[in-house]
Amino acid sequence: MEDIIVQKYGGSSLETIDKIKNVAKRIVKTKLSGNSLIVVVSAMGKTTDNLISMAGEICTEPAPREMDMLLSTGEQMSMSLLAIAIQCMGYNAISLTGSQCGILVYSDYSNARIGNIDTKRLKGELSKDNIVIVAGFQGENSDGDIVTLGRGGSDTTAVALAAAVNAKKCEIYTDVDGIYTTDPRIVHRAKLLKDISYDEMLELAKLGAKVLHPRAVEIARNFNVPLVVRSSLNNSEGTKVRETVSMEKAIVRGITLDKDIAKISILEVPDRPGIAYNIFSKICEANIGIDMIIQNVHRNAVNDISFSVKSQDLNKALKITKDICKEINAKEVVSDNTVVKLSIVGTGIMGDPSVITLFFETLYNLGINLEMISTSEIKISCIINDYKAEEAVNELHSKFKLDE
Amino acid sequence: MEDIIVQKYGGSSLETIDKIKNVAKRIVKTKLSGNSLIVVVSAMGKTTDNLISMAGEICTEPAPREMDMLLSTGEQMSMSLLAIAIQCMGYNAISLTGSQCGILVYSDYSNARIGNIDTKRLKGELSKDNIVIVAGFQGENSDGDIVTLGRGGSDTTAVALAAAVNAKKCEIYTDVDGIYTTDPRIVHRAKLLKDISYDEMLELAKLGAKVLHPRAVEIARNFNVPLVVRSSLNNSEGTKVRETVSMEKAIVRGITLDKDIAKISILEVPDRPGIAYNIFSKICEANIGIDMIIQNVHRNAVNDISFSVKSQDLNKALKITKDICKEINAKEVVSDNTVVKLSIVGTGIMGDPSVITLFFETLYNLGINLEMISTSEIKISCIINDYKAEEAVNELHSKFKLDE
Repeated sequence: MEDIIVQKYGGSSLETIDKIKNVAKRIVKTKLSGNSLIVVVSAMGKTTDNLISMAGEICTEPAPREMDMLLSTGEQMSMSLLAIAIQCMGYNAISLTGSQCGILVYSDYSNARIGNIDTKRLKGELSKDNIVIVAGFQGENSDGDIVTLGRGGSDTTAVALAAAVNAKKCEIYTDVDGIYTTDPRIVHRAKLLKDISYDEMLELAKLGAKVLHPRAVEIARNFNVPLVVRSSLNNSEGTKVRETVSMEKAIVRGITLDKDIAKISILEVPDRPGIAYNIFSKICEANIGIDMIIQNVHRNAVNDISFSVKSQDLNKALKITKDICKEINAKEVVSDNTVVKLSIVGTGIMGDPSVITLFFETLYNLGINLEMISTSEIKISCIINDYKAEEAVNELHSKFKLDE
Repeated sequence: MEDIIVQKYGGSSLETIDKIKNVAKRIVKTKLSGNSLIVVVSAMGKTTDNLISMAGEICTEPAPREMDMLLSTGEQMSMSLLAIAIQCMGYNAISLTGSQCGILVYSDYSNARIGNIDTKRLKGELSKDNIVIVAGFQGENSDGDIVTLGRGGSDTTAVALAAAVNAKKCEIYTDVDGIYTTDPRIVHRAKLLKDISYDEMLELAKLGAKVLHPRAVEIARNFNVPLVVRSSLNNSEGTKVRETVSMEKAIVRGITLDKDIAKISILEVPDRPGIAYNIFSKICEANIGIDMIIQNVHRNAVNDISFSVKSQDLNKALKITKDICKEINAKEVVSDNTVVKLSIVGTGIMGDPSVITLFFETLYNLGINLEMISTSEIKISCIINDYKAEEAVNELHSKFKLDE
């Protein structure tokens, strides 16, 4: 079999009939350069949002199983239209739903994980010289039900298929040119990155760079799938995401700003074993994702515990936290929805004192108060007030010479 | 298990979110009267037409497999929205695609036939007290592909499911009150029929009464499924379709006018065996449905052969017929697209000379020339010029006392 390339086209690349025809041309071009092709699609433009709002008109809390059934039609529409467009150019194409493509998933409706991919049919269609168009964002669970992978799940589908068939590369087509040093809407001098490592990309994706879904990056890293993020509107080379072992000194690769964040603090929590477990297990049970957790030891056998959640989960999380607060005899719960998370990402930066110093110095000079700090090997994040956040991103972009 | 009722709601009954909510209320009402319920849905309003026109913008002849993939999303959307509406009222509901519901089909994409229904999952969901919402118009073939049953196929799905689970009855909900003696748009005095036999309904459906799909009636007759056709907008009792053995004298039950018809005649066909086979096998191979065939023996060992096809198939059929005409050395081919088919339907009417007499007498008095005539045990059809057709329907409606 020829080398297999997996391409993924997002909703904005498939928004209109004309855009679908353009994508078909791009696909045929790749096919003609001698590759086997698997193409993963999202729903056209705002289709998913429209379906969600229709369901919302009927019921404030529609059941997840039925929502998945509803939303999965979006990808099924775009994949069949794209297959028709390719066939109309005289090439063989066939569209497959997640189920037909053997994408077996487990866990929750609306947020499933890919368990396994049975590639029998997929490989069969490729060997018949078909360009295989696959519905992103969906799979089948053990009950034979259609389950979606959660928003951004089409990236995950593409990378998982690339891993399953040992593809030469996985190209993620989107409406921007690739991965930038930071959000070009905030910093006009933001630069396109030619390449970036899986780990760096993973942090960037988790920290709010919306171009790639973090789960997709994780799978790419674990299975060593070469990823390319590029535009469906031009022929720019895009950004390569791959296993790069940097021999150079630590360097900041990107800056992210996540505005979709809120902070909750429980003050004066009695210092007893099991308290943290008690709090966070209940929040996780309510399906609320926790971002950072900070605990400082306090005097008098009490601690303050702070954590951050997504803004839209604040009210739900707050209610749970207040109940727990009473149970465990803490003093009180306070929250703040005007915070943002500012991060810098780059391999080895935590091992380079000059990076750490420059980061905190820059924020200090802007008079920014740091409410929470969290670090990993390759990133430094802090929760700050949103007031001066964009100014800080601009300033850091200059200081770390990302403009050059 | 309780008695099972199958209900089918057409696209016009599910056109808007409000209509979907109303249908949900009607379903819950039936459920509360102590029945197990299977509900078959069509796509919302003009969804199917819109999808067809999107595909048409991409390609003039989209492949049937991809069209089926595309069109099947329409029913999947409406079924999940309806399930959400029912759940929101506090009742258990689950939606199933044709595949999930075990509807196994064979033969062509876009015009499949139901081969078998594996009711395991369907019965399992009913036994969990779920109202089961099923996507009409679709099934799965032996390749695991989604295949549609052709237009009007949701009626077929509903009746087939009713037969498979031995339902107490199958209710077809539509935007009219039931089956009328003739088209109320042509004859304002048209009367709603309280009941009608399977055979009569079958002829009416085939002859152009668009309320029920003929295949659905055929399955209902073969499996003795009690059918009810009624409005989703009011509580009218509708029309019952069932096995009635009329003890009365033959009576005309309905009059139909099918305007979607064209006539082709091959003149002076040499009288040799195999000629009819030669002509009609080629037309059938081109997937053109032939309606009536008339052949009169002519003098000099030549015949005239006439047949009727659907208007939209005329050009295609004409091309084939002209080729055959040369091959078999016939004189010429003539066609007429201004004809219509007028029919009267009623059990036993062909055995009642008074009916036959009154029919032809009425047309004669209107000065209508009969171009082709075809009869069965329970119907008389003739092809006439469209010029006086509606006048004829009105006149026959009075003469056969259908106004009363």
